[in-house]
Amino acid sequence: MTLSEIASLLGGDILGDESSPSIEITTLSKIEEAQCGSLTFLANPKYEKYLLTTSATAVLVSRTFPVEEYRTKISIVFVRVDDPYIAFLRLLPRFIQVPDPFSPEIHPTAVIERSAVLGDDVSIGAYAVICDGARVGNGTKIGAGCVIGKNATVGNHCLLYPNVTVYHGCTIGNRVILHSGAVIGSDGFGHAPRADGTYEKIPQLGIVVIEDDVEIGANTTIDRATLGETKICRGVKIDNLVQIAHNVVIGENTVIAAQTGISGSTKIGKNCKLAGQVGIAGHIEIADGTIIMAQSGVPNSIKEPNKAYFGYPADEARKAQRAYAALKMLPDTIRELTALKQRVEELEKKLHVQQQSGEGTT
Amino acid sequence: MTLSEIASLLGGDILGDESSPSIEITTLSKIEEAQCGSLTFLANPKYEKYLLTTSATAVLVSRTFPVEEYRTKISIVFVRVDDPYIAFLRLLPRFIQVPDPFSPEIHPTAVIERSAVLGDDVSIGAYAVICDGARVGNGTKIGAGCVIGKNATVGNHCLLYPNVTVYHGCTIGNRVILHSGAVIGSDGFGHAPRADGTYEKIPQLGIVVIEDDVEIGANTTIDRATLGETKICRGVKIDNLVQIAHNVVIGENTVIAAQTGISGSTKIGKNCKLAGQVGIAGHIEIADGTIIMAQSGVPNSIKEPNKAYFGYPADEARKAQRAYAALKMLPDTIRELTALKQRVEELEKKLHVQQQSGEGTT
Amino acid sequence: MTLSEIASLLGGDILGDESSPSIEITTLSKIEEAQCGSLTFLANPKYEKYLLTTSATAVLVSRTFPVEEYRTKISIVFVRVDDPYIAFLRLLPRFIQVPDPFSPEIHPTAVIERSAVLGDDVSIGAYAVICDGARVGNGTKIGAGCVIGKNATVGNHCLLYPNVTVYHGCTIGNRVILHSGAVIGSDGFGHAPRADGTYEKIPQLGIVVIEDDVEIGANTTIDRATLGETKICRGVKIDNLVQIAHNVVIGENTVIAAQTGISGSTKIGKNCKLAGQVGIAGHIEIADGTIIMAQSGVPNSIKEPNKAYFGYPADEARKAQRAYAALKMLPDTIRELTALKQRVEELEKKLHVQQQSGEGTT
Repeated sequence: MTLSEIASLLGGDILGDESSPSIEITTLSKIEEAQCGSLTFLANPKYEKYLLTTSATAVLVSRTFPVEEYRTKISIVFVRVDDPYIAFLRLLPRFIQVPDPFSPEIHPTAVIERSAVLGDDVSIGAYAVICDGARVGNGTKIGAGCVIGKNATVGNHCLLYPNVTVYHGCTIGNRVILHSGAVIGSDGFGHAPRADGTYEKIPQLGIVVIEDDVEIGANTTIDRATLGETKICRGVKIDNLVQIAHNVVIGENTVIAAQTGISGSTKIGKNCKLAGQVGIAGHIEIADGTIIMAQSGVPNSIKEPNKAYFGYPADEARKAQRAYAALKMLPDTIRELTALKQRVEELEKKLHVQQQSGEGTT
Repeated sequence: MTLSEIASLLGGDILGDESSPSIEITTLSKIEEAQCGSLTFLANPKYEKYLLTTSATAVLVSRTFPVEEYRTKISIVFVRVDDPYIAFLRLLPRFIQVPDPFSPEIHPTAVIERSAVLGDDVSIGAYAVICDGARVGNGTKIGAGCVIGKNATVGNHCLLYPNVTVYHGCTIGNRVILHSGAVIGSDGFGHAPRADGTYEKIPQLGIVVIEDDVEIGANTTIDRATLGETKICRGVKIDNLVQIAHNVVIGENTVIAAQTGISGSTKIGKNCKLAGQVGIAGHIEIADGTIIMAQSGVPNSIKEPNKAYFGYPADEARKAQRAYAALKMLPDTIRELTALKQRVEELEKKLHVQQQSGEGTT
Repeated sequence: MTLSEIASLLGGDILGDESSPSIEITTLSKIEEAQCGSLTFLANPKYEKYLLTTSATAVLVSRTFPVEEYRTKISIVFVRVDDPYIAFLRLLPRFIQVPDPFSPEIHPTAVIERSAVLGDDVSIGAYAVICDGARVGNGTKIGAGCVIGKNATVGNHCLLYPNVTVYHGCTIGNRVILHSGAVIGSDGFGHAPRADGTYEKIPQLGIVVIEDDVEIGANTTIDRATLGETKICRGVKIDNLVQIAHNVVIGENTVIAAQTGISGSTKIGKNCKLAGQVGIAGHIEIADGTIIMAQSGVPNSIKEPNKAYFGYPADEARKAQRAYAALKMLPDTIRELTALKQRVEELEKKLHVQQQSGEGTT
């Protein structure tokens, strides 16, 4: 790849001379190990010292890196990008031969039931089961031990790692990644109490719809709707061990970190960020662009978009963080208040006395 | 189904004329789409407007709905029930043909080891494994990829969705539902520290007993007892991603929401409700009918039955909610206290001066 | 087994006469059921009453048990150990025939891909899949439905319960136990934001390394590193439903309870104890021997070793527990502060009046 191609791929700017764009990069390296022909990156300032001695041909630096300081001293070509580390990671698969964890074929042990339909170029792992009426799109790879339930649909170019379960009737879009142990379409948690204290199961007749370009982490669970759909909109990224209850809607490009739980019928907006171990109550709405910090609990709807929240009950983040930090001081505060009450009582007594003596002097 | 049969099934009262009970209902519909012959429901007040124009033959309403207001205006038959939406959901499977997600037979690829015993009318999915000595009761359906360990027992009319694991020796009652990825009988988490800082595994020799009519969510884990039994009593409903540690007992008809964890040897009473992401410490007892609100932590036993708790350490719910709400005001409180101290100091100074001057005047 | 062998195994001291060490123990029993020839234990003081009537030949007691009080009254042989209950549990597998949950052979349905390498005396369950390039060490037992990805390595004498997934390239040491549903090596959660609000997946090119003598609970997830390794060092014990993010390092002999989550690139020291539902932020370091109490959140590095922490943000445990306990009193505190302000205001008014009248008297 030439530097020009690399800069174009990364949205970067080449700072070199006229010939720089056509330089051929043959490998990627850490700065302290780089040889001629290699591209390296500088993200952590403590590695800046290697810049003067490295044999690398080019280096990815951030937009704010003081390139001018170095250009007179060294002949390396700088490529300015938004985030050098991420840019480097994005390039890696172009230079490293990453082995495909999936097998290229339909394993002879895979069970493809009679009325299941497979697209072109699919890969189906050993002991995977594609049930009657299910459809698997072109170029999709399904790992060993996965079960695609009756009438479920998996789109094109998806990756389902081993031991994923997709329940009957659920719909998965294109370019979706499901990690091992993910369960899509289990029954929503609904039980109507009977007079005798026992519960009657409320039938869960809906489905889960996962739109395009979604990634779902290992052992995450997404329940089917009671009626209608639980919906994960396009571009959503969900980490491991997350719980999405029945009839929830997660808006486009929202990111949800590990062990977070969203209760039933809640609607999360677009472009939100939910950190780890967050809990969101049922039947509420969270505005677009909302950020919920780790371990927070959200009992009520959030209407104003693009704000950060923290704590339980989640409050505007800075305010809540100050409150939680202040909690440490609470035992002292209570002690001080008690002491102050004592002093005020003393003052009151004294003043009463003075008043009396004052009265006496008048 | 006639309205009479429907009212009897739902425990509802028909408000119509003499002929109403024998009216035949042919379909269920949303109120805005209902045709003659259909039963609809009214749960959300904002749909009440459709009541005047709907073609529905009958409508489910709540006990408190002002039926008299409408009876003179429209000819629809009212059926009063406790919860119109849930009543409607309960009827749905009677009218909608819900496809059975399980296959009707024992799949030829299922491994039934030699001394395993299967009841009548069982369904066993592809690549399921029923180990030696295991028993599967009549009418039970076991999904693809499930593993029923040695000497484990699954009762009658159970549903095990794909990829459930039941460890050796565990016992599952009748009409139990286990969702995909549930793990029943993994080792309790017990390790005795050695002097050198390493740990010795304490053998986990007990089992898990799940009684009748229990439902367990996707990817929930229930550990086997060290000795004796971890016990999930009849009628318990457990959501997804819940952790039940070794030697725990969950009392009858208790409901546990997603991502809650119960530590070892704790005994939860009957008819309790644990909301999501709750944590319960080990070796404690929770009284019958206790409600624990979401994200709460319970470090000590709760002895008084039928009360609600919240927060960490969980306290009587209203009190705790007030406390957490007050936390927001803590930074202000501390500032105010500091200001007040200042004012008291001023007062003390002044009073001291006055005292002196007062002394001077005597 | 003789008492002498038992005492030696448990590191215990026999308190009897010369003949005691050679006494043959034939069975283990509860104290209330023990017969001649059996060894029992006393851990809970409320069972001490049985000591005078039991027929047991010997009894395990703690180092602090008042043996002298009983030696004159009863003829039982005392064996003093550090923890009688754990000592008893350790003995149990020597006396009880615990059936091996694994089958002794390579099941004919197991798929062993062409270039996979199996050690001696391995057990591979039905429908397990050992992918190309994978290695399984001597004496290792792999349960039904497990998937060992391409080029992954599992060491000697490991136990993988059914339905475990090990992704491609990951490395597992010797004597490691993985419980059902555990996922080792799923992609780290890394996505670079694009200008249009969508995300680009950052390739996860590293692996997970699990060292010797580690145990990992059911449905726990451990993500592969972005580059390099996510590392679980020797002797670590991890409970169920725990999340370990990419590039995390867990130091030797650290114990992590259920539902805890460790965010990306964090380094946990040796001999730490993380209780249940703890959350640890990313890119921080936790010192050796740190204890984090249940449900705590740790946003920043902990540098001082061997201390206990609690709450969010986690603080020195006793201090934080006092703070959380004080939270209950906060609404009262705020009310009292308001009342006190009132009183100070009164004083200020009064004093102002006095001052004036005082000034009048001068």
